[in-house]
Amino acid sequence: MTMSKRDTYTPDSLLAVAVEVFNERGYDGTSMEHLSRAAGISKSSIYHHVKGKEELLHRAVGRALDGLFGILGEPGAVDGRAIRRLEYVTRRTADVLMDELPYVTLLLRVRGNTTTERWAMERRREFDQRVSALLRAAVAEGDLRADVEPRLATRLLFGMINSLVEWYRPEGRGGVAGDQVADAVVRLAFDGLRT
Amino acid sequence: MTMSKRDTYTPDSLLAVAVEVFNERGYDGTSMEHLSRAAGISKSSIYHHVKGKEELLHRAVGRALDGLFGILGEPGAVDGRAIRRLEYVTRRTADVLMDELPYVTLLLRVRGNTTTERWAMERRREFDQRVSALLRAAVAEGDLRADVEPRLATRLLFGMINSLVEWYRPEGRGGVAGDQVADAVVRLAFDGLRT
Repeated sequence: MTMSKRDTYTPDSLLAVAVEVFNERGYDGTSMEHLSRAAGISKSSIYHHVKGKEELLHRAVGRALDGLFGILGEPGAVDGRAIRRLEYVTRRTADVLMDELPYVTLLLRVRGNTTTERWAMERRREFDQRVSALLRAAVAEGDLRADVEPRLATRLLFGMINSLVEWYRPEGRGGVAGDQVADAVVRLAFDGLRT
Repeated sequence: MTMSKRDTYTPDSLLAVAVEVFNERGYDGTSMEHLSRAAGISKSSIYHHVKGKEELLHRAVGRALDGLFGILGEPGAVDGRAIRRLEYVTRRTADVLMDELPYVTLLLRVRGNTTTERWAMERRREFDQRVSALLRAAVAEGDLRADVEPRLATRLLFGMINSLVEWYRPEGRGGVAGDQVADAVVRLAFDGLRT
């Protein structure tokens, strides 16, 4: 028996609950029943907000993707030498990951067969390719090392940045300040551990 | 109805099948029925080899952990300045990840509540702490930058290395040579992208 509370959800607050459940159980492993229980409202109340769980997934990963692609249109990502733009994008990607942690976590975990999952994976690949192109440009300008294959360098760079979703916790909850984390990412990615 | 073939499995070959299923469905989502279907032998044949799925998990993550902890006893990890030892451990960790890809993938994905899962997470944390201690020693010797908090640096270093399990494919299957990947990891981790 589900204890239903009054449905006072906004689109955003319902999405926040759904994303938590998706990250906890996996998208495939989440049913409307799980969402209903987590939100404390009936399934029909949820259907009043959205057509189904795929719409919630679409909005959640869409929010993460909007954050990431938004970076590429910012002045720091558009103007100047490629290395400066890549540094900017690296820092801002770390920022967006931390600001939109549950949404980007979901985006990075999506592997699947629904239209929305394929779309999310495709858009994510597109973002990686845009950053990879920037990295190639910086190599061509002589500012980045040429002895690591650019696709490999891009993967390792994203490996480092994306690992944030595994361990980052906001400062208030025993974590490190986001600025300090973003600084560390940029320092290590561009200059490495060595003095 | 399960089409059973003759049970010609060795402990290692049965483990390889189980690990593939665990990585595909998640450990929690895997039943003995799934293992039986994937192996093409009956459940009672599997019980002839192991007590249950937790024993398979234990052996699989044990294999990954043996590979990782083995590194720490190798001469390159024991002798010399801390920075050289850390470089050595970084390269060898990348090697072990690539050589034992499905086993380390499983280890890195384990989150859970069984005794074996808790043990695996504990041992993994212990490995991270051993590497973190090495990193601190190299900072103390003045060879690594002191402006990134060592625990944060360790997390980002492992973020980069561990990302291999997400994208690395062996050379024969359209991937890059393992040596080239390990070189890239060491170069980027210690000297960064910049020329």
